[in-house]
Amino acid sequence: MRKTGNMLTHRMKIRVIYGDTDNMGFAYHANYFRWFEAARTEMFRAWGLPYTRIEEKGFFLPVSEAHCKFTSPVKYDDLLEIETTLDRSVKAGMKFDYNVYVNNHDSIVANGYTIHPCLNSENKVVRPPSFLQEIIKKNTEPE
Amino acid sequence: MRKTGNMLTHRMKIRVIYGDTDNMGFAYHANYFRWFEAARTEMFRAWGLPYTRIEEKGFFLPVSEAHCKFTSPVKYDDLLEIETTLDRSVKAGMKFDYNVYVNNHDSIVANGYTIHPCLNSENKVVRPPSFLQEIIKKNTEPE
Amino acid sequence: MRKTGNMLTHRMKIRVIYGDTDNMGFAYHANYFRWFEAARTEMFRAWGLPYTRIEEKGFFLPVSEAHCKFTSPVKYDDLLEIETTLDRSVKAGMKFDYNVYVNNHDSIVANGYTIHPCLNSENKVVRPPSFLQEIIKKNTEPE
Amino acid sequence: MRKTGNMLTHRMKIRVIYGDTDNMGFAYHANYFRWFEAARTEMFRAWGLPYTRIEEKGFFLPVSEAHCKFTSPVKYDDLLEIETTLDRSVKAGMKFDYNVYVNNHDSIVANGYTIHPCLNSENKVVRPPSFLQEIIKKNTEPE
Repeated sequence: MRKTGNMLTHRMKIRVIYGDTDNMGFAYHANYFRWFEAARTEMFRAWGLPYTRIEEKGFFLPVSEAHCKFTSPVKYDDLLEIETTLDRSVKAGMKFDYNVYVNNHDSIVANGYTIHPCLNSENKVVRPPSFLQEIIKKNTEPE
Repeated sequence: MRKTGNMLTHRMKIRVIYGDTDNMGFAYHANYFRWFEAARTEMFRAWGLPYTRIEEKGFFLPVSEAHCKFTSPVKYDDLLEIETTLDRSVKAGMKFDYNVYVNNHDSIVANGYTIHPCLNSENKVVRPPSFLQEIIKKNTEPE
Repeated sequence: MRKTGNMLTHRMKIRVIYGDTDNMGFAYHANYFRWFEAARTEMFRAWGLPYTRIEEKGFFLPVSEAHCKFTSPVKYDDLLEIETTLDRSVKAGMKFDYNVYVNNHDSIVANGYTIHPCLNSENKVVRPPSFLQEIIKKNTEPE
Repeated sequence: MRKTGNMLTHRMKIRVIYGDTDNMGFAYHANYFRWFEAARTEMFRAWGLPYTRIEEKGFFLPVSEAHCKFTSPVKYDDLLEIETTLDRSVKAGMKFDYNVYVNNHDSIVANGYTIHPCLNSENKVVRPPSFLQEIIKKNTEPE
């Protein structure tokens, strides 16, 4: 996990399996959104706040918007690195940006984002609870 | 839906999409189990008992065992027909057999089965409830 | 298939299966992109030009960008209707817009788009070939 | 990787994501077959023979049969361990057995197998090539 300014960045490696690929010989586009989920989950865990803990406290962060641009295709057995960044300018819920790298190259092969409202246990949209805001602050403030 | 002896058979068509295929140019094996689910669900609906109704009454039929033999590969855009048969010899839960046909040919390209215990709302294994047994009986007895 | 102005609209029904849902009890967001694929494929078929035919002629329409907004969640066994519209203002490749309806209600529960460059068999970006442009024109011009 | 008798065993950890779960709150059964694929692929890599290398040499190991028994359900964010064992008694192709463990407990929550014929580049069933047999022998013989 790296802090750049007030940005919070996390990296996770994911291997492309046969089940992720399609007929054209490349990874199927919908699977990138699964990888984004895996990556932001590990970011929460790296913060010391597994997403399961958030749910246990009665808050949920479903996906309300998802976007991805696929610049270069990735293939079976490629080793991806998903770089997740919390966009701290979004206050009402959470927004994560993702860059996808492949096989340790520097160029980005895909980039996207997901937006998440914060829901309470009655399914009402609420501000992110203070325990969540604090952990974000703690992880993004310069030490 | 056809009745053959005390067998109950249902057929459902499914189109292979790009997202189902893999790098070899064929449908990825795990997806057949998704198709089996779609097929047995439509069989329940054809009986006049959508699976959602069973759950509303507090019973669940999770998959405890799944098997498939893949005889011939299927390709992108192939039109599959899943033939589902209830194996009435299984009394403790439910067992469904599946044959997969492709593009209106007679030969079977895959065949498998799934086994389902019947759980009540406390997650205890129970005998299939009488409303379920009756609908099976009604749909399998000669008219 | 409906023509509205120079828009071309196609509707396809899809049933949400257990395998599409997640832990929150709703359809998992990545699966909408699979449904979008199924829907645009059936639009091509409705035009009289199955996508397999385009590939046989040496042209490919991979996804270079995908977006979806999820307004209301959909549940297991919901019957979705995916309304696909070709955005004819995009000339360099193809762009499809999607609206998702559920259980015959009028409100849109999700909407998104996908963008597709046209590649030739050497993986070069090209203008959509004339046979493709003609079939689009034929299907969008007022009769 | 452990050698037990003439058995070859490999273990790989996999995290259950939201996209793997379903409406019942557990991992959807079809996904276990994706995990089996990931696990046997890492076993090949641990042998020093990535599966991509086998394909580059013109041999393919598609799945001709897949089976799984689901003893206990697994949940979102569970950390699975997939134990893969090559069944050396099968000579015509390859057979892998899988045991699934969860969150470092000793009990097996699922077990299954996959069978793979060996195909050459003309899609003919052949004996596993000598380079593959040798690497298996090298990895299974007592040192």
